[in-house]
Amino acid sequence: MKNFYDLVNTRSSLRSFLRDKPVQEEVLLRVLSAGRMAPSAKNLQPWTFTVVSSRETLETIYPCYPADWIQSAPHLLFVTGRRNDAWVRKYDGYNSLETDLTIAMDHMILAAAWENLATCWIAAFDPQKLRRALDLADDEEIFAFTPIGYPAPDAAPRPKTRKELKEIVRYL
Amino acid sequence: MKNFYDLVNTRSSLRSFLRDKPVQEEVLLRVLSAGRMAPSAKNLQPWTFTVVSSRETLETIYPCYPADWIQSAPHLLFVTGRRNDAWVRKYDGYNSLETDLTIAMDHMILAAAWENLATCWIAAFDPQKLRRALDLADDEEIFAFTPIGYPAPDAAPRPKTRKELKEIVRYL
Repeated sequence: MKNFYDLVNTRSSLRSFLRDKPVQEEVLLRVLSAGRMAPSAKNLQPWTFTVVSSRETLETIYPCYPADWIQSAPHLLFVTGRRNDAWVRKYDGYNSLETDLTIAMDHMILAAAWENLATCWIAAFDPQKLRRALDLADDEEIFAFTPIGYPAPDAAPRPKTRKELKEIVRYL
Repeated sequence: MKNFYDLVNTRSSLRSFLRDKPVQEEVLLRVLSAGRMAPSAKNLQPWTFTVVSSRETLETIYPCYPADWIQSAPHLLFVTGRRNDAWVRKYDGYNSLETDLTIAMDHMILAAAWENLATCWIAAFDPQKLRRALDLADDEEIFAFTPIGYPAPDAAPRPKTRKELKEIVRYL
């Protein structure tokens, strides 16, 4: 992998992992550091990155997402944050938490792809169950998590279908 | 630039541009294509990318953001989308629009940095004024935009200060 565009074009949602091949600590730290360096509104960094690897905690999280394939991943990575720690726009009270947490997660998903690791953005979880499993405080929120690990030989990326540029770009 | 981590570590919010050096079309298309390839919930791609380069339209946008430095940029890039085009979570009605649009913008901000272009995430705009300037439909939303262009010689990145990993990472 030599090029940012190769990275973006080949990153894919993968749904089959080598469960018995955890990510080496130094690789995981590089991925987390890419999230750490993400920009956030007013640089408030309103985030916590949670890496779940213990069998016991993984088992409490599986019921929060109705698809067995996530059980093949050696780790699950969560980005959470407190709304009160994020920036608020003066004009209308908009709070930047969701955007801030998403940028950090996107950085880590791309870093993982750079490391030839498999990931998959997941938002279709049961939020109440997941909040309990992660023991989130009342003012903490989560918008996405991802399994992370090495892809299994059968981890076939789905073909990438996207709208054409002319359908989505306008010039003014 | 050879490495994704170099990209993440050197990308910076830059606030001074070469106004008279527009981005070449082929470079701009590469940046836009990185946004096009971004993942979105259920691959719904609920986004429009708007590139504003005409003096006339730029002038209508400047009053939406109270800092003169954006006037040095040859282009402004907006990611907008319709809430009704985005995915909705069955459990609680959460709508993925903000996360989807943020991932696309993050891909383009990183692609721009890869091209040695300057950008700066901006959310501190006057949303009502900006909606009118962009002529957004009632169900369209915008969470961020960025100026884009070549950095001026005086475009000094602020030092990157971030919390330490041990402050933001937990292992379960």
